[in-house]
Amino acid sequence: MNLVNLTPALTPLRPSGVGAPTPGTVTLLGAGPGDPELLTVKAVKALQAASLVLYDHLVSPAVLEHLSPTAERIYVGKESSRHTLPQGDIIELMLRLARSGRSLLRLKGGDGYIFGRGGEEAQALAAEGIPFTVIPGLTAAQGAAASVGIPLTHRDHAASLVLATGHLRDGQGLDMDWAMLARPRQTVVLYMGVNNLPEICRQLMAHGAPATRPIAAVQHGTLATQRVLTGTLADLPAKVAGAGFTSPSLIIVGDVVQLHGTLDWFEPQTGAPLKPHRGEGQLPPLPLNSA
Amino acid sequence: MNLVNLTPALTPLRPSGVGAPTPGTVTLLGAGPGDPELLTVKAVKALQAASLVLYDHLVSPAVLEHLSPTAERIYVGKESSRHTLPQGDIIELMLRLARSGRSLLRLKGGDGYIFGRGGEEAQALAAEGIPFTVIPGLTAAQGAAASVGIPLTHRDHAASLVLATGHLRDGQGLDMDWAMLARPRQTVVLYMGVNNLPEICRQLMAHGAPATRPIAAVQHGTLATQRVLTGTLADLPAKVAGAGFTSPSLIIVGDVVQLHGTLDWFEPQTGAPLKPHRGEGQLPPLPLNSA
Repeated sequence: MNLVNLTPALTPLRPSGVGAPTPGTVTLLGAGPGDPELLTVKAVKALQAASLVLYDHLVSPAVLEHLSPTAERIYVGKESSRHTLPQGDIIELMLRLARSGRSLLRLKGGDGYIFGRGGEEAQALAAEGIPFTVIPGLTAAQGAAASVGIPLTHRDHAASLVLATGHLRDGQGLDMDWAMLARPRQTVVLYMGVNNLPEICRQLMAHGAPATRPIAAVQHGTLATQRVLTGTLADLPAKVAGAGFTSPSLIIVGDVVQLHGTLDWFEPQTGAPLKPHRGEGQLPPLPLNSA
Repeated sequence: MNLVNLTPALTPLRPSGVGAPTPGTVTLLGAGPGDPELLTVKAVKALQAASLVLYDHLVSPAVLEHLSPTAERIYVGKESSRHTLPQGDIIELMLRLARSGRSLLRLKGGDGYIFGRGGEEAQALAAEGIPFTVIPGLTAAQGAAASVGIPLTHRDHAASLVLATGHLRDGQGLDMDWAMLARPRQTVVLYMGVNNLPEICRQLMAHGAPATRPIAAVQHGTLATQRVLTGTLADLPAKVAGAGFTSPSLIIVGDVVQLHGTLDWFEPQTGAPLKPHRGEGQLPPLPLNSA
C-alpha cells in the first residue's frame, strides 16, 4: 500500500492516547446462497484466514467449515421476525472489537450490499476510520435461479430484474410499490416473502397483474434441502401453505417461471448432478453419459 | 445419478443411429465481474477441468488463466454493437459440438441468467436433450458496488434494486420503462448504458426524476483499470464524455450513490488493498496496520 499520499492534513487531529491500539480490519463478506462451492475464491481465503467471525443466521453450516478450528465464532443471529442481536448492537459489537485491535470477518448470507444491511455496517466503520474490505457474494436469487432453472432475464420474457423484500417492517404492513412490481415484462424476486405470499399475490392482482402470471417459491435454493413450487398468482399461496414452506424462501414472479419445467437440472438429494432433460414435449431425452 | 426413474415412456422414440455419439455435457458458467478472485469455487473447478471452452468478449483474461494449457478455446465474441458470432450461430456451434460428443464450457462474463442470454442457450440444450449444468456468477453490479462503495440497497435510501439494460436493440431507440426507472427510493443499475448516458439522464428527468438525483458510471469494476465518476442526472453525461468512458461500463442511479465518497475502499492500481477512510468529515482516519 502506498502511504506516501498521507499528507499531514490526513493525520489524526486527536492524538491517540498512550497505548490506544491500532484498530483491526473488518472484512464484510457475502457467503452466497448456501452451497459452499458457490463461495468466491476470495471469500474462501478470507474464511481460512479469519481469527474472529461475527456471523448471521443465514450463513449455511457448510460455509463455516472453511474456518480454522481455532477461529473464534460469534453468532449474532438475525431471523426473519426476531434478531438475536438488534442491528445496532451488532454494529456496536463489531466496532468495539475492531477498536480494541481485533481484525474480524463480518459474515452474512448472500451479498451484504443486497438486503444485507452491509451499507449500514460499512458506514459505521468508515465513520470511525476503521479500515474495511467488502467481498461481494452471490445473492440468493442467483443461486435459486440457476438451481431451479429460472433465468432472471430473458429476451422473450423479462427485460429487467427487480429485487425487493417482502417482509413486514416493525409490525407495519407491506410497504411496497405494488404498481411497479405488478408491471409486465420483468422478473420480480421477493426476499423473505413466503410468509406474506397471500397478501403479495392479492396486491399484485389488485394492481393489474393477471391472475395467470407465473410465480414460484423456492426454499433453500442450491442446498440439498431445496424445494420449488410453481403456479400462478391465483393458486400458488394455497400450494405453498399445503407444502409448509418456511423462511427463508424466495418468491420469483414473472413469465420466466414458465421455463422451470424445461430448465431445471438440479437434483437436491445428491448435491448437484445432471439429470436428463424432459425437452419441450416433442424431443425425447438422449441417453446420458454414465455418471 | 438415479436412472431407475427413466421409465420406457422417456426413452428415445427415434432410436439412435449406429455410432451416433452420446452427447457431451454443457456447463453454462458465469465468470463474474472480472477479478478472478471473484470466481466461485465451483467455477474454478469447472475451468480447470474443461477441455473445450466457448467464451465471450466480457470474460477477463485473468479468468482464462485457470484453463488447462491443453484446453481448446473458441472465442465467440459479443461486443456491444457487433457480435463476432450472432447469438443464433453461437447456439448452433454449441449444439453441434455437444451433439458430436464433446463436453464443453460455455463461459460468459457476469451471471449467465442476468443479461447473459443463458436462458436461450439452456433452452436450446434442453430442447435437444443435451445435459447441462448452470453455475451462477457475480453480476457486474455486485462487483462494482463492492469495489466502489455503493451499497445496492439501503434502509435509508433504496428498498429495491432494479437491473436493466441501457443499450439499443437492433438499431431501435431505447425501449425502456422510464416511468418505472425514474421512481424514488430504489437503485437502478443499467448495464451497457454508457454510450446512451445523455439520453438515459434526459428520459429519467422527463419522467419525474429530479435533476439532482445521484448517478455514477463505473468502468471495469473490480479490475485494476477501474474508474468511477459520480454526479447528478444533470451533470454526469458531460463528466463521462470528458473522461472518455467506454463500454462496458455500468450506470448506477439512486441516492445510494452518495455513499461512494464515504465507502470507497478499493485501490485499483494495486489490486484491492485497504486504504484509509476519510470518515464523514468530522472524524480523521486512524493509522492503518502496516501492509
